[in-house]
Amino acid sequence: MLKPPEHQVAGHEAGTGKVGPLVDGSGHFYKPLPPGDERGAHEVAFYTSFSSDPRVPSSIRTFFPAFGGTQLLRASDSSDVLLPHLILEDLLHGYTGPCVMDVKIGARTWYPRAPESYFAKCLKKDRESTTVPLGFRISGLQVHHESGRWKPDRNKVRKYTVTDVRQVLRQFVSKNPDETHPDCALASSIYGGSNGILAQLLELKSWFEDQTLFHFYSTSVLISYDNGGTAARVKLVDFAHAVEGEGIIDHNFLGGLCSLIKFMSEILTDSEAEVGPANNGMA
Amino acid sequence: MLKPPEHQVAGHEAGTGKVGPLVDGSGHFYKPLPPGDERGAHEVAFYTSFSSDPRVPSSIRTFFPAFGGTQLLRASDSSDVLLPHLILEDLLHGYTGPCVMDVKIGARTWYPRAPESYFAKCLKKDRESTTVPLGFRISGLQVHHESGRWKPDRNKVRKYTVTDVRQVLRQFVSKNPDETHPDCALASSIYGGSNGILAQLLELKSWFEDQTLFHFYSTSVLISYDNGGTAARVKLVDFAHAVEGEGIIDHNFLGGLCSLIKFMSEILTDSEAEVGPANNGMA
Repeated sequence: MLKPPEHQVAGHEAGTGKVGPLVDGSGHFYKPLPPGDERGAHEVAFYTSFSSDPRVPSSIRTFFPAFGGTQLLRASDSSDVLLPHLILEDLLHGYTGPCVMDVKIGARTWYPRAPESYFAKCLKKDRESTTVPLGFRISGLQVHHESGRWKPDRNKVRKYTVTDVRQVLRQFVSKNPDETHPDCALASSIYGGSNGILAQLLELKSWFEDQTLFHFYSTSVLISYDNGGTAARVKLVDFAHAVEGEGIIDHNFLGGLCSLIKFMSEILTDSEAEVGPANNGMA
Repeated sequence: MLKPPEHQVAGHEAGTGKVGPLVDGSGHFYKPLPPGDERGAHEVAFYTSFSSDPRVPSSIRTFFPAFGGTQLLRASDSSDVLLPHLILEDLLHGYTGPCVMDVKIGARTWYPRAPESYFAKCLKKDRESTTVPLGFRISGLQVHHESGRWKPDRNKVRKYTVTDVRQVLRQFVSKNPDETHPDCALASSIYGGSNGILAQLLELKSWFEDQTLFHFYSTSVLISYDNGGTAARVKLVDFAHAVEGEGIIDHNFLGGLCSLIKFMSEILTDSEAEVGPANNGMA
């Protein structure tokens, strides 16, 4: 039984007359490849090349969704058209209370040799969002908490300022995400710890300081944890504009990643300071 | 006795009808502040603020030229006009065979809130040079070697491709810099070692991963060594477009710095491989 994913926070959504991704409920995520859309073909090419590249360490491979080739499926727009789909790992399979944040990394989202019109469109978006000042922007998120689900509207997310991003990164790890003063109660368990988000981002960073195989434009870091139990996880998604590195490091991705790391470290430091000295019996 | 510096490789040069920097031969470098030029005023403001900022570690302060305020001096264009000048440390004072390379760091040179015309001019230059692909560009260089001085023409430097930059970084540490196959004979002593260029760049990198005080647009790393003996040195120069960091790391500078570090590491690895296994008596 294929159906649109319930917990998608960014990207094209399936709906009547609109083609979007599908999940099968047993761990697979199907991303449509509309005819004539070069981006889809490009993403297939990336996954194919990446998944067989022996130069990618296995510890890094785990940051990418598992790839299962392509398959013809009926499109999600309820038409009878058969469309090829990318078969990927459903990153939220098994989550009962999925908390997800899609963070598009890099101070520029346009790739080398992009058509002028695409370049201009990206540059405009990059300058109007936090992409230029921060080196990343939040594309979408949702948090499941005790009293429900908090999922900011896409139009709101699109307008996030630097100040908003700081706040949202705190809200994402709070038990009261939709309140003005998020408690950051989950910061140390989700962002912190030896298997936390920050540790995973730092491992990615080490690879990016060295790897010259790929440059990732408009690629996101998908940060997730399950309010129902599963540990915090970092995955990379969206490779429609991944290109060959040509012996140069991906300084655009690396810079943005370091900026995100810095913001998270500060939240962690702040939240530790709050539960630390203030609670040491001297207060 | 003030005179134009002999070993300037980038920036405005002094000459008849043109105002440029001056040196006094005893360790001072005077940078003119033409009236109405906001950049000069901005650079003075940066040096003033930076030099008294207690948050800058002393180990990092040594990467910046010493600052001695401003002084009215007769302009270098031989007119009788008195112009204010920045008093800075002459970074090449005492060198007998100065080898210098000016590397402008960052994948973008335009600063936030720059006028549209300046933004467009910078963006064009960034895309036409290695600034966008590499995250840095070489603005000028000279090498003193046994048989003379090698100083590529400015127009040539302006057109450097990624391949040229790779080659030039090798030529800079060669005893035969102007030949097709540079020997990289000085790579291990200049780029390598615990006090070499690479070690200094890595120290800078650590600071940039953390510091949110300043963002440096169009700032260069000035790499120098004295063919007559003095050790390799890294300094930052040109702060006309340094701005406040506003709590965000300078991911633009950091990314470019990491890219330069990677290129240098590779030269070092290559040159060590050449003098290593091949010379172990088994060849």
